[in-house]
Amino acid sequence: MASQVNPPRGMRDFLPTEKAQRERVLAVIRHSFTERGFDEIETPVMEDSDRLHAGLGGDNEKLAFGVMKRGLTADDLKTATEPLDLADLGLRFDLTVPLARFYASHRGELPTVFRAIQMAPVWRAERPQKGRYRQFIQCDIDIIGEAGTMAEIELITATVATLDALGLEGTSIRVNDRRLLTSALELLGFPPKEHEPVLITIDKLDKIGQGGVITELRDRGFPAGPVDALEAFFHRPTTMEFLPFGEAAIRKFLPDGVDETAVAELASIGETVNRVIGRDIVTFDPWLVRGMGYYTGAIFEVAHPTESYSLGGGGRYDGMIGRFLGTDVPAAGFSLGFERIVDLVELDGNSGTDAVALVHDADVDPATLLREQARLVGEGKRVRLERKPRNLKPLLEQLEASGFSAYAFVTADGGRGEFKALG
Amino acid sequence: MASQVNPPRGMRDFLPTEKAQRERVLAVIRHSFTERGFDEIETPVMEDSDRLHAGLGGDNEKLAFGVMKRGLTADDLKTATEPLDLADLGLRFDLTVPLARFYASHRGELPTVFRAIQMAPVWRAERPQKGRYRQFIQCDIDIIGEAGTMAEIELITATVATLDALGLEGTSIRVNDRRLLTSALELLGFPPKEHEPVLITIDKLDKIGQGGVITELRDRGFPAGPVDALEAFFHRPTTMEFLPFGEAAIRKFLPDGVDETAVAELASIGETVNRVIGRDIVTFDPWLVRGMGYYTGAIFEVAHPTESYSLGGGGRYDGMIGRFLGTDVPAAGFSLGFERIVDLVELDGNSGTDAVALVHDADVDPATLLREQARLVGEGKRVRLERKPRNLKPLLEQLEASGFSAYAFVTADGGRGEFKALG
Repeated sequence: MASQVNPPRGMRDFLPTEKAQRERVLAVIRHSFTERGFDEIETPVMEDSDRLHAGLGGDNEKLAFGVMKRGLTADDLKTATEPLDLADLGLRFDLTVPLARFYASHRGELPTVFRAIQMAPVWRAERPQKGRYRQFIQCDIDIIGEAGTMAEIELITATVATLDALGLEGTSIRVNDRRLLTSALELLGFPPKEHEPVLITIDKLDKIGQGGVITELRDRGFPAGPVDALEAFFHRPTTMEFLPFGEAAIRKFLPDGVDETAVAELASIGETVNRVIGRDIVTFDPWLVRGMGYYTGAIFEVAHPTESYSLGGGGRYDGMIGRFLGTDVPAAGFSLGFERIVDLVELDGNSGTDAVALVHDADVDPATLLREQARLVGEGKRVRLERKPRNLKPLLEQLEASGFSAYAFVTADGGRGEFKALG
Repeated sequence: MASQVNPPRGMRDFLPTEKAQRERVLAVIRHSFTERGFDEIETPVMEDSDRLHAGLGGDNEKLAFGVMKRGLTADDLKTATEPLDLADLGLRFDLTVPLARFYASHRGELPTVFRAIQMAPVWRAERPQKGRYRQFIQCDIDIIGEAGTMAEIELITATVATLDALGLEGTSIRVNDRRLLTSALELLGFPPKEHEPVLITIDKLDKIGQGGVITELRDRGFPAGPVDALEAFFHRPTTMEFLPFGEAAIRKFLPDGVDETAVAELASIGETVNRVIGRDIVTFDPWLVRGMGYYTGAIFEVAHPTESYSLGGGGRYDGMIGRFLGTDVPAAGFSLGFERIVDLVELDGNSGTDAVALVHDADVDPATLLREQARLVGEGKRVRLERKPRNLKPLLEQLEASGFSAYAFVTADGGRGEFKALG
């Protein structure tokens, strides 16, 4: 028995060093968002199955883990026609659907403009691969009840401040607006019902390039005229002249005549954030799509200078809360991919606490040891008791690897010796 | 639509004030255990169904939420004979089974004596009632690899220190030993195979009293001789003389001739803890049972002076790790009931951070607001931006209720005014 005992497929255990690092990074993120006026909330890991499968989660809905009804009988199994008949609950696949449900449940107890923090695990039954897990943490901030661009400006500045607090240098924020995308597609001749399917292909631009996008659109049978127009647009000459973020820079990359409200709002968001941060951290990406169909306005993504994937993203999703509440409420959010960030961040391993070990003979009175431990804890130290092994070296190596800085011997007759540095 | 939108039955949302309190209490517990040399770990919320249903969880196994296999077909449903055929995973119902699995998975990477902290949610499909939820947090510490009483002594002193750090006054630790219970039952004439079922009834002593226990044992058909002996033992005269915790005090409450090793070990645990803490915090409870069948030695429970339920409990469970690992490893643990504790604890609501609001006119430049926010954050303040509503009073009341101490107006022409205290 027990030859190989592992956590479930695609899920991870965290050993002490990893767990400590994760908690440190979470604490920095929590502190950074909290001091900017956001409030942390928590929802259960499960939601009613009907809500999870209401069409708001896009492809992620298919990846939800279903939780079986309790007390099912053999008859229930026979009469079920599909698996969802047997599940009344499911594990959340993101934090946005639960937030919309939470807001609908508690609107009367929340501020008019509600700034939410959620830092919590989500689950997706994806095929496990390097860097992709079936349980992972997302760190979301959302502003509900603010229709103006102040929401996006606060979300982006709070995110940039948090990345700074984590010591992640060189990140930038790529922005776009869903209204600009659909407006551009319309100007190129795509009928409205084809906008969403065309965007699914355009979303692959980073991976397959402009040529790949055009080929895929032709293969998928989209009308030749608009696809040709898109190809010509990709190949149009653009000046190399640098324009600082603003309306002119946005228009430069888009067909003439795009949605003017969206241009003005996106320019205002980017200009304001750049002024506040004091550098050109916001850049315009005319073909940034973001997968989720629920976005209705500005969208954004965190780009890292050395990593090809984004560290997070978000946008405005004005229609979503209404699906739960019955009344539309404007909303926008920014989600940080915690698992990617925690791998890039280097924070001091000891949280400033000096960790020491008391290595004792087996015959030392436990009360003596515990009193000495309590005394050192009172001085602000972290103290571990270790019975002296026959061979001291592996113990000392293990203590050093775990971040301990020193050790001292305690004997039954002599009390505690001097601390000796480890390593 | 959406007339009543709630979290799933028996599960809770946490609003900002509650969530902040929960995080503060968790931080105190984490800090207290960490400084005493324990290491926090984390396991996935799910375990393989076979492991959860291996007979180690007692009655809790029946309460596990099952997670459905992915990609089930209509045929799979037809051929299944019981619900568990369709579930390959389940949500953990405690933190002990996952810890045993974790230790079996990672033994080679862990210290010889491993002191674990786990603070995490568990799920049980119990009938929801006041104070009982289907998702709740447990805070467990465990020491794996220490066969001697030092494990129990460290667990109890760390728990007492943590209750002190939380400001919970007047708690005491009731202790007993499984070996004393079975030894006493044997001396009263109960055959070994009846010990576990008899203990299930004795476990109800707090609720149904000695008379109730005797009646239930008779009704359940246990042999008259031993039940009569237990009744006589309940009614024996005991001296009112106070004995400090120790071997004599333990023997006073038990039939003559009980397990001497258990008496000596339990006396040593209690005496040592009382000496270290400096008061008689450990008391002997000869009929303390603790529900779980996996306990093999000392067992303990936290009693609170005004609450009838225990705030936590634990004990030695030497046989359990071996069920996963294949080799027996000694282990003991102490679990705090976080949900009960968080309701009793009163911690300062603001974590020492001064929270203020900048109440601004709609026409103030967002960059001005965000720079002022950043400046105040730099001074260590928590700062929320609030657009000035027509009626100021509800906003100010809401800010005060959320723990904000002051507010200032910001206008487009005049900049920021003086801070005014809230409340």
